[in-house]
Amino acid sequence: MTTPAVKDLLGVLAYGELVAFERIAADASMAPTLNDKIALAAFADAEFRHYEKISQYLTRNDIDPADAMAPFVEVLDNFHNNLAPRDWLEGLLKAYVGDGIAADFYREISIHLDQETAAIVNDVLSDVGQTEFAVNRLRDAIASDPKVSGRLALWGRRMMGEMISQASMVASSRPALQELFVQSARDPQTAEQLSGLVNRLTVAHSRRMDALGLAS
Amino acid sequence: MTTPAVKDLLGVLAYGELVAFERIAADASMAPTLNDKIALAAFADAEFRHYEKISQYLTRNDIDPADAMAPFVEVLDNFHNNLAPRDWLEGLLKAYVGDGIAADFYREISIHLDQETAAIVNDVLSDVGQTEFAVNRLRDAIASDPKVSGRLALWGRRMMGEMISQASMVASSRPALQELFVQSARDPQTAEQLSGLVNRLTVAHSRRMDALGLAS
Repeated sequence: MTTPAVKDLLGVLAYGELVAFERIAADASMAPTLNDKIALAAFADAEFRHYEKISQYLTRNDIDPADAMAPFVEVLDNFHNNLAPRDWLEGLLKAYVGDGIAADFYREISIHLDQETAAIVNDVLSDVGQTEFAVNRLRDAIASDPKVSGRLALWGRRMMGEMISQASMVASSRPALQELFVQSARDPQTAEQLSGLVNRLTVAHSRRMDALGLAS
Repeated sequence: MTTPAVKDLLGVLAYGELVAFERIAADASMAPTLNDKIALAAFADAEFRHYEKISQYLTRNDIDPADAMAPFVEVLDNFHNNLAPRDWLEGLLKAYVGDGIAADFYREISIHLDQETAAIVNDVLSDVGQTEFAVNRLRDAIASDPKVSGRLALWGRRMMGEMISQASMVASSRPALQELFVQSARDPQTAEQLSGLVNRLTVAHSRRMDALGLAS
């Protein structure tokens, strides 16, 4: 598995999980009730389990996890700094949408991976019931205050935009990673394949927003 | 185990672990290196495992965890709000000292508990190597910049003071809890026993500060 592309992919996935853990745990302090806090803390903890699995897999393959994650620290920190939720609902939508887009993206990628790495990636991305809690709580909040939906719809669009923008930066700065999900970066079909990927991610994002009754 | 005192004790312990998880995870964002962030995230995660063990024990005994924790939310949130670390080292000392004082306190209490509850409490408080990381990093920081030690010594004293003050408030508002660790709250020896407990906790705190070369 020790190609530069796989090291990059697992590095960005590992750091993404680690920083999601940290941010979601911090967002739990905005929870309106104790049961909400417990649920969001469990969500954060699931991200840490994911981080640990990838980290252990890297270590087993003689790759230092910090070394693999280092190239992606700045871009992922920027992403989170640009999208600091102002309240509980924004934090919850961010966890739900962010987790969903990341899962779609890595699943697209995993078909190009060796079997063992793909198994780790799919295991890490398996939903452990966290999404259901977020969807239920967001639906309740939207139902009880219609003004919430406009604000959250806007927040969802900002997130999708920010993710595409940061992902493009990662792709352009890490050619090995880019080659992983296009047949060849020098292939004329590359641009088309990349836009196909972005389209599929956008459609899936719209479905998630639809499930909440939010415009995307 | 379903005495009001045990419910209170496990409630305050559970919420203490949950909020420690949340705060330590948030403090990981101040880590100067990726390896420091990983280590502090693992520290936070250990607190969440502890929370989960107590929560599951409460549920097995037909006690709703949120119900048991509710009376202690305000006092523990105040404690953390009054002691928001300004940087990475303050966060690290807070995790180390806070974890240590809490462990000493619950160990003192556990001798008055039924065997099953005492086993849960001791299991939860078992150090899983997190302390060693904090001690090593704090010692390095103090050795490389002598000015750090004065500031951290002051921070350690503030923490101990805040803990005693909040613990007194908890004890006075929860008579059942108080009766757990003094033979009887109506016993003339109560005050003496309480001051004995505070003395032992202070001595242990001084030893922890000494281990870092900090005045307590």
